[in-house]
Amino acid sequence: MPYLELAPEYAPPRSEFSRPGILSAVARINGFVHHTPVLENAWLNQQLGCRVHFKCEHFQRGGAFKIRGAMNSVLQLSEEQASRGVVTHSSGNHAQALAIAAQMRGIHCTVVMPENSPAVKMQATRDRGALVVTCQPTQAARIAATQEIIERTGATLVHPFDQATIVLGQATAAWELLTDVPQLDAIVAPVGGGGLLAGTCLSAAWFHPDRRVPVFAAEPTGADDAFRSLQQQSLVTEQKPQTIADGLLTTLGQWTWPIIQQQLSGIVTVDDQEINAAMRIFWERLKWIVEPSGAVSLAGLRQLLANQRKIFANGATEPQIGVIISGGNRDFVPV
Amino acid sequence: MPYLELAPEYAPPRSEFSRPGILSAVARINGFVHHTPVLENAWLNQQLGCRVHFKCEHFQRGGAFKIRGAMNSVLQLSEEQASRGVVTHSSGNHAQALAIAAQMRGIHCTVVMPENSPAVKMQATRDRGALVVTCQPTQAARIAATQEIIERTGATLVHPFDQATIVLGQATAAWELLTDVPQLDAIVAPVGGGGLLAGTCLSAAWFHPDRRVPVFAAEPTGADDAFRSLQQQSLVTEQKPQTIADGLLTTLGQWTWPIIQQQLSGIVTVDDQEINAAMRIFWERLKWIVEPSGAVSLAGLRQLLANQRKIFANGATEPQIGVIISGGNRDFVPV
Repeated sequence: MPYLELAPEYAPPRSEFSRPGILSAVARINGFVHHTPVLENAWLNQQLGCRVHFKCEHFQRGGAFKIRGAMNSVLQLSEEQASRGVVTHSSGNHAQALAIAAQMRGIHCTVVMPENSPAVKMQATRDRGALVVTCQPTQAARIAATQEIIERTGATLVHPFDQATIVLGQATAAWELLTDVPQLDAIVAPVGGGGLLAGTCLSAAWFHPDRRVPVFAAEPTGADDAFRSLQQQSLVTEQKPQTIADGLLTTLGQWTWPIIQQQLSGIVTVDDQEINAAMRIFWERLKWIVEPSGAVSLAGLRQLLANQRKIFANGATEPQIGVIISGGNRDFVPV
Repeated sequence: MPYLELAPEYAPPRSEFSRPGILSAVARINGFVHHTPVLENAWLNQQLGCRVHFKCEHFQRGGAFKIRGAMNSVLQLSEEQASRGVVTHSSGNHAQALAIAAQMRGIHCTVVMPENSPAVKMQATRDRGALVVTCQPTQAARIAATQEIIERTGATLVHPFDQATIVLGQATAAWELLTDVPQLDAIVAPVGGGGLLAGTCLSAAWFHPDRRVPVFAAEPTGADDAFRSLQQQSLVTEQKPQTIADGLLTTLGQWTWPIIQQQLSGIVTVDDQEINAAMRIFWERLKWIVEPSGAVSLAGLRQLLANQRKIFANGATEPQIGVIISGGNRDFVPV
């Protein structure tokens, strides 16, 4: 259970990421995305000796938090930009989210996917009205194909995580969480590209009535670029990911890294067995389908409570912890 | 899609099953079992062209409705009976439910299980504080082993479905459903031994403010004794069940059959493929784990809407239908 305790500088974030910036995103996407429920489980609270408040983004439109950033981005396009559509490269939840967001605004959407993506994911994206363009399964080919579409059609790129509008959109999840449960002692969120984690850090800094809420990141051991970046205090952009958490394979970006570096209180890594154990708790006890990436935050919390419980102490005998479940898009297994 | 429309006699049920009898059960088990939520899904409503109100017994204590009847039975034991404990034979949800109910009253519980039951089910029952006694995997051996325990210990039998206290306990699920959604046009419930279905019929007869709510049963094609019983108007007690819906293998009993015969408005059978298709909707769209038996009611509703929609017409363009999800205890599948 590698754990890295951080002493964040808490530098004020750049002006895009102000309190009003987040509140504007909240107002903008209101009605287009769900204000998802925050739910507890009595058995689990007793097992863990704390109150765990799950932010249920697996019940979000499209089955994951991604619609927040996508919607916040699509709604800020000018009429002229909107007429030329949006484009992204993703084989995961962002692809469907952008397709849904574009459909809600009534604009064109193109998604670049590696040609070896599962047919079911391509079809799900097409079902949301998007055009799917396939490319060779390399990062370079993805970017080249996306660039080619931008040059040819004038479409606007909506990146899966590394844009200010995306970070601000994802920040609305923790804003809702803190609005519904103001007494939180800490928040645990998963980290892949860092859009959700950076947004969570921002809301945790701005939206508690009288203090900053510490944020802890949970990352798969097999894709631990954020852990290594924080350890060496410089952005790591290389990794050969190997984990079942297929939503967390990417490395941090230019927009997400500085926020995380300045605001995060700690990071823990979890292996695939620990991720499966967390998924099993959701399955057996809460009767929820949670995808591996979505279970990483509970897996991380369990490790922190087993080994580093003191970080949640904060004077509270029974700490109250927000845990963000990022998504629930797991392939169906018939009986 | 075999469907049998019935013209129930609506004979008044025997005195045990009066309106006050059900309300007593409601009051008795209050605080011991969850008043489970009733939830809708916008996408599914649109797909089906009606409003489907799911009664979520997969979120019930023990993961199924069974705790209602078990608790209602255990709480009615005299002090003297309680001191000698309870016994049942079950390898399914009733076993765990009775163990939990006995634990809540602080009395002894013995469960007779076939020796070929999955180890995980035996352990789950032991984890709830019950003594597990194994027997040969035949109906005769089960009954003999149970009888032997009763004679030796004086324990009270709490049958999985065929007792008045069980039927009244299970009736509380539909009472809650009608209390939360009084405007229902119909209710669909699964049928195995008939405890839940008979209880649903009783509450549907008693608890709508100004009319009787029609109840439709959904049954696996591979365990269709209730369908055959209703077709020939006499209780069928023989079947060789073959279905993935392992909670619905038993035949109706002496207490449940007359109620169902007199009160049910129709019955539909669904095959394993249709059950898996319903489980898939719960998985992909609602992010819920529902066991095969629990998905039978939605599978039945889908068939009724596709082939017999007129039975829900009742003047309403968009009928409102209660669908009871009986449980969610499916074995975890890791990624």
